[in-house]
Amino acid sequence: MRAVVYDSPFKVSVENVPDPEMQHPNDAIVKITSSCICGSDLHMYEGRTAAEPGIIFGHENMGIIQEVGSAVKTRKVGDRVVMPFNVACGFCKNCQRGFTGFCTTVNPGFAGGAYGYVAMGPWRGGQAEYLQVPFADFNCLPLPPGDQYEADFAMLADIFPTGYHGAELADVRPGESVAVFGAGPVGLMAAYSCVIRGAAEVYSIDHVQERLDKAEEIGAIPINFDEGDPVRQIKDRRGGEGTDKGIDAVGYQAAAQGSSAAGGEQEEIPNVVLNQMIDVINPTGAMGIPGLYVPTDPGGVDEDAKRGALSINFGKLFEKGLRLGTGQCNVKRYNAYLRDLIIAGKAKPSFAVSHQVSLEEAPDAYDKFDKRVEGYTKVILNP
Amino acid sequence: MRAVVYDSPFKVSVENVPDPEMQHPNDAIVKITSSCICGSDLHMYEGRTAAEPGIIFGHENMGIIQEVGSAVKTRKVGDRVVMPFNVACGFCKNCQRGFTGFCTTVNPGFAGGAYGYVAMGPWRGGQAEYLQVPFADFNCLPLPPGDQYEADFAMLADIFPTGYHGAELADVRPGESVAVFGAGPVGLMAAYSCVIRGAAEVYSIDHVQERLDKAEEIGAIPINFDEGDPVRQIKDRRGGEGTDKGIDAVGYQAAAQGSSAAGGEQEEIPNVVLNQMIDVINPTGAMGIPGLYVPTDPGGVDEDAKRGALSINFGKLFEKGLRLGTGQCNVKRYNAYLRDLIIAGKAKPSFAVSHQVSLEEAPDAYDKFDKRVEGYTKVILNP
Amino acid sequence: MRAVVYDSPFKVSVENVPDPEMQHPNDAIVKITSSCICGSDLHMYEGRTAAEPGIIFGHENMGIIQEVGSAVKTRKVGDRVVMPFNVACGFCKNCQRGFTGFCTTVNPGFAGGAYGYVAMGPWRGGQAEYLQVPFADFNCLPLPPGDQYEADFAMLADIFPTGYHGAELADVRPGESVAVFGAGPVGLMAAYSCVIRGAAEVYSIDHVQERLDKAEEIGAIPINFDEGDPVRQIKDRRGGEGTDKGIDAVGYQAAAQGSSAAGGEQEEIPNVVLNQMIDVINPTGAMGIPGLYVPTDPGGVDEDAKRGALSINFGKLFEKGLRLGTGQCNVKRYNAYLRDLIIAGKAKPSFAVSHQVSLEEAPDAYDKFDKRVEGYTKVILNP
Amino acid sequence: MRAVVYDSPFKVSVENVPDPEMQHPNDAIVKITSSCICGSDLHMYEGRTAAEPGIIFGHENMGIIQEVGSAVKTRKVGDRVVMPFNVACGFCKNCQRGFTGFCTTVNPGFAGGAYGYVAMGPWRGGQAEYLQVPFADFNCLPLPPGDQYEADFAMLADIFPTGYHGAELADVRPGESVAVFGAGPVGLMAAYSCVIRGAAEVYSIDHVQERLDKAEEIGAIPINFDEGDPVRQIKDRRGGEGTDKGIDAVGYQAAAQGSSAAGGEQEEIPNVVLNQMIDVINPTGAMGIPGLYVPTDPGGVDEDAKRGALSINFGKLFEKGLRLGTGQCNVKRYNAYLRDLIIAGKAKPSFAVSHQVSLEEAPDAYDKFDKRVEGYTKVILNP
Repeated sequence: MRAVVYDSPFKVSVENVPDPEMQHPNDAIVKITSSCICGSDLHMYEGRTAAEPGIIFGHENMGIIQEVGSAVKTRKVGDRVVMPFNVACGFCKNCQRGFTGFCTTVNPGFAGGAYGYVAMGPWRGGQAEYLQVPFADFNCLPLPPGDQYEADFAMLADIFPTGYHGAELADVRPGESVAVFGAGPVGLMAAYSCVIRGAAEVYSIDHVQERLDKAEEIGAIPINFDEGDPVRQIKDRRGGEGTDKGIDAVGYQAAAQGSSAAGGEQEEIPNVVLNQMIDVINPTGAMGIPGLYVPTDPGGVDEDAKRGALSINFGKLFEKGLRLGTGQCNVKRYNAYLRDLIIAGKAKPSFAVSHQVSLEEAPDAYDKFDKRVEGYTKVILNP
Repeated sequence: MRAVVYDSPFKVSVENVPDPEMQHPNDAIVKITSSCICGSDLHMYEGRTAAEPGIIFGHENMGIIQEVGSAVKTRKVGDRVVMPFNVACGFCKNCQRGFTGFCTTVNPGFAGGAYGYVAMGPWRGGQAEYLQVPFADFNCLPLPPGDQYEADFAMLADIFPTGYHGAELADVRPGESVAVFGAGPVGLMAAYSCVIRGAAEVYSIDHVQERLDKAEEIGAIPINFDEGDPVRQIKDRRGGEGTDKGIDAVGYQAAAQGSSAAGGEQEEIPNVVLNQMIDVINPTGAMGIPGLYVPTDPGGVDEDAKRGALSINFGKLFEKGLRLGTGQCNVKRYNAYLRDLIIAGKAKPSFAVSHQVSLEEAPDAYDKFDKRVEGYTKVILNP
Repeated sequence: MRAVVYDSPFKVSVENVPDPEMQHPNDAIVKITSSCICGSDLHMYEGRTAAEPGIIFGHENMGIIQEVGSAVKTRKVGDRVVMPFNVACGFCKNCQRGFTGFCTTVNPGFAGGAYGYVAMGPWRGGQAEYLQVPFADFNCLPLPPGDQYEADFAMLADIFPTGYHGAELADVRPGESVAVFGAGPVGLMAAYSCVIRGAAEVYSIDHVQERLDKAEEIGAIPINFDEGDPVRQIKDRRGGEGTDKGIDAVGYQAAAQGSSAAGGEQEEIPNVVLNQMIDVINPTGAMGIPGLYVPTDPGGVDEDAKRGALSINFGKLFEKGLRLGTGQCNVKRYNAYLRDLIIAGKAKPSFAVSHQVSLEEAPDAYDKFDKRVEGYTKVILNP
Repeated sequence: MRAVVYDSPFKVSVENVPDPEMQHPNDAIVKITSSCICGSDLHMYEGRTAAEPGIIFGHENMGIIQEVGSAVKTRKVGDRVVMPFNVACGFCKNCQRGFTGFCTTVNPGFAGGAYGYVAMGPWRGGQAEYLQVPFADFNCLPLPPGDQYEADFAMLADIFPTGYHGAELADVRPGESVAVFGAGPVGLMAAYSCVIRGAAEVYSIDHVQERLDKAEEIGAIPINFDEGDPVRQIKDRRGGEGTDKGIDAVGYQAAAQGSSAAGGEQEEIPNVVLNQMIDVINPTGAMGIPGLYVPTDPGGVDEDAKRGALSINFGKLFEKGLRLGTGQCNVKRYNAYLRDLIIAGKAKPSFAVSHQVSLEEAPDAYDKFDKRVEGYTKVILNP
């Protein structure tokens, strides 16, 4: 089959690779209809991880079940399904409590697995024609047959639940005000999720105008941090008050004010978003942090950053009595509910998709997405 | 009346001061029967805060109502009562949601007030014969008449609820394992609260033997960090696994391994407990942080510490998907329930009290408590 | 001042009564600008309660503070405010935990008080020019000055929070399906609250066409129970499945299928809604019950109903593992958040208001509202 | 193999039946070491259900894994395990949210399955030498090897988690007061769970002295309802107040005051416990109802009871604003935590076991347990 294979920093190619095979009675093989490129794929693409050449990318996958193992009970050939980016067993200590992003079964020695991602277990990615899906009863979310909502459902594999997870970690409730840092795909989904959950005011903070425009379209209030301290901007609009909650949808590669967003060349300040969140949130508030922080970053800006240590205004955080939640999204907690919002016409997360291209065009799409040219913000590959 | 007055670093005296007066129709005047010296009083005593000479100490107060204002409805002269250390109004945005440690009414320009504490509002302390208590209906927790359980009830003003708050912030549930850092009075109360809440294993980490002995008495497993990395000790006992939850009852004045605990001379490493907690807790776990961190510490070990910034292993924290909660305890959320446990004979928090002395002996008690001599761990002053 | 006074069944008049006076240092006197007639006023109006002649009606009140007592701290003359229908102290055991609908201070011997309502304490109603408001700091929710959103804010006294309470009791979450029984003012607010909270499908069940039309306007799916068993109708639309949650916004005066809704003459089946909810909800679901059930109903359809006992399909409820929550709304838990939704333009609850008339027109409005003529569904009196 | 087989009302026998066989790659075969007789087995034994002759009883099972299917990942031959009485898949809509008592996979057309129980699916019981366990990774809780705590661990299959579930449904928290109706095995476990969770006062209500004695031994306050209205007795002890919470561990076969508990001959009043709970609980309280109520009871005391309809004082329940939760316990939510309490020496649920006998003695044990003679309260069969 054809698949997107990582060659070296800034280089992927579409190659012939062996078809995946059933390896376990609980497996399914899914014929991929949509697989998205994720911002976190760029970490590998840019050579900023330990990813080895040969890895097949793709953890945002949906398609049609082609084959099921003998142990699979409730999924069958022909089902249209979308898979959480987390590979999970459903029965370990963490999965059974809903922490499917921290499965202890699928990636021995670590809590958490994913398709096509370095250090996340032996699972090949879905930017390919076919995908092996373990524990198919647990990992395949059924969708209505046909091709309706294809781009919306594709968002269920990762970014819609991940953005929603930010709102959940911050415990965003109706009538509250929220500062959402970052208006990339996950940040937009976080802001969108806050709107869906009934927040009164959602501030979207970024410095890329087209992202801020999208944020405004979905009902958020855009804040351009190149135009001045975002904390000050928000407090000025709120009569000096901060917000009830905050979401960090940026993570460790946070850009300094005024630095260019293009081409990955921007100046990084890894703790800037965390400390701004601590500043902007009112006492008793909460922070949801779906944005990625890593324990080892060879490209970190200094020695501390390289080992994932950040200087955090913890005294201020404590004085305000803030709470925070972090970590990879447990997609399976949310995906059925978010799917039902799409089907009911109450959510349309495909607004964040900028491009849909064929699998063969993946190298070009990676290049443009990485450089953020031509409005490349979220790309779906259709094998 | 007689009161404990701060003179200068390492010096308090018992002086004659004017009696408190009713200032508001919702006030009560309470004749103090017990007022404790708190570890946080030592921050002021040691000159490590901006506290000015003349301040009357004492935020852990109980006694008998002597007088009530014309607006007071449900408390009356002669009632035996204990007051949360937080002064709170009961009706501001934060109080009405139960965040009484962050009252916006009683300390203008700040969220949170307390008796006898620098920067916590205009409220005099209760290490004195009488105390003015505002919003008496809200702030006076009624107790059974008489003098039974006096030392136990005195713990309801601060340390028992504050320790319990740690367990609540960490969401400690029956059957879980918890690492409690610190076995001073608050740490002991945190460990005790975990036991009360049905935790299966509670590890108490300290390096003062008499504290560890007390921890063991109440059902915790003592871990002496002078004998080696406490994270390693705990994981070794648990077959390589960490704990479900952690509580930091130490705060920013954390001692380095092997440094002496006596006399405030120990070497401080302000982030050591936070990073050890991140290490010891299992993925998906949670941390409760009632231990004090401050945004400004003139005596901080370095420039970062002086402004309350700590280097935290945030990449690891994120990778594990940990949650954390911080801040001053909202005493009023818990004190009635903890009182009922005492009355029912199910809790006896006075086990942490080492000394009860008269008000006139306060200067000596402060001196010995500060130097941690003669087993001075928790002192009640009885005016 | 002028006030709406109850004379006898089906008769109220507007009379001169003494102005309210400050009775307590925590009181405020509010000059009423809007006071609504509530469906529960009709229970008294129809003589179906123990209400004595002379009672001044009105528990949905807003206006401008005219005078404040000496103990009031954070509210001042000239403030525009809306009051929860529940009178509450803010400091009793129930209030401090947020159960302000069950205050034990304001209505001695009972848990819960209200303005202008039989058995709910000594508090006069606000269908008048002025209103005495006790514990003004706690009970007066501040509003932006001016007269913008007057009708929307008036809904904050009762029906918007009460409808929202139904969604909260049923724990309605994003992506869920909900069956809301009743599309009167509270039912519409319950459905609207479910929409605000991000429910995927909200079914509004009633048999008055204009109510169903309003439900549809706000995004609910109308189900007319005169056209057949509503449980069957909903399951048919959902491929045989029930809903995740249910809300009973009807209460004990539930109408039988096909009976007329006009004039209070409809045949009552007091348990019909509860048992239909048990039928329609999926196993593991939950029910929120803000609709009124009473322990004594002199007009009950049989002996059991007269003493508030209902035949409930408890075996089925248990088999499905359902949860339920009941009771008067604790308005103060929600009103600030709902106010902020109005100010942000995200909620416009005045859609439920059918008429705004002067205080002098109250007798006519009561008559028409009681008979449900001329589209009288929700009336605001403007003194 | 030998197994306990139901023959006819009041008659079981131990017979040779075919060994269970692996039917699915996710199955395990467990060699039973302990299988308890449950009070709910008596419903079938007494002929009060639709159970057909030939059914093998036993849903409280533990033992050693004898064989595992090809798809089983984390359990292996030789593991000592205990199984929840609920058979569950781990991946259906209900299981994935933790409602494993309402699995939609294992008992087609119904939500919930169990071993050896009428209408709970095709699963044979474990009062036998061997048991087929489906979805072995999910359903087999691992235990330490050896035979320590055998009787304690056997309680993890049903009654300990079921009692705990009552406390969870009632949201019992530290410092609260709880009325637990029933001191049979489940009621004792509910009271015990309240104690473990830190309740201040736990009232155990029954009329069998030896049960009340056991309740007292574990720290509960015994209330004998043959000695007068239990609601009155509790309120008298509490100065006229009710309790914060209540648990119904009795269910639909509730005994009238003064009726004999022996031999199943007692007069039943199916709604008596529910209405007493409504009476005894304070406003804003909650009720947990693990006690069984059924939608069809051929032996019901009247027509309503036969179809599972009970007359409930719903007006009073609403006036008090009570919440309630019901249903079969989701054992898997709790069993690992309760196991860890046993291992840590903090729980010893075997205190409720009265007899341990061989499998061959089952007919005699059923007879005596049903007649409640010779202190037969909880029997473990050891094949």
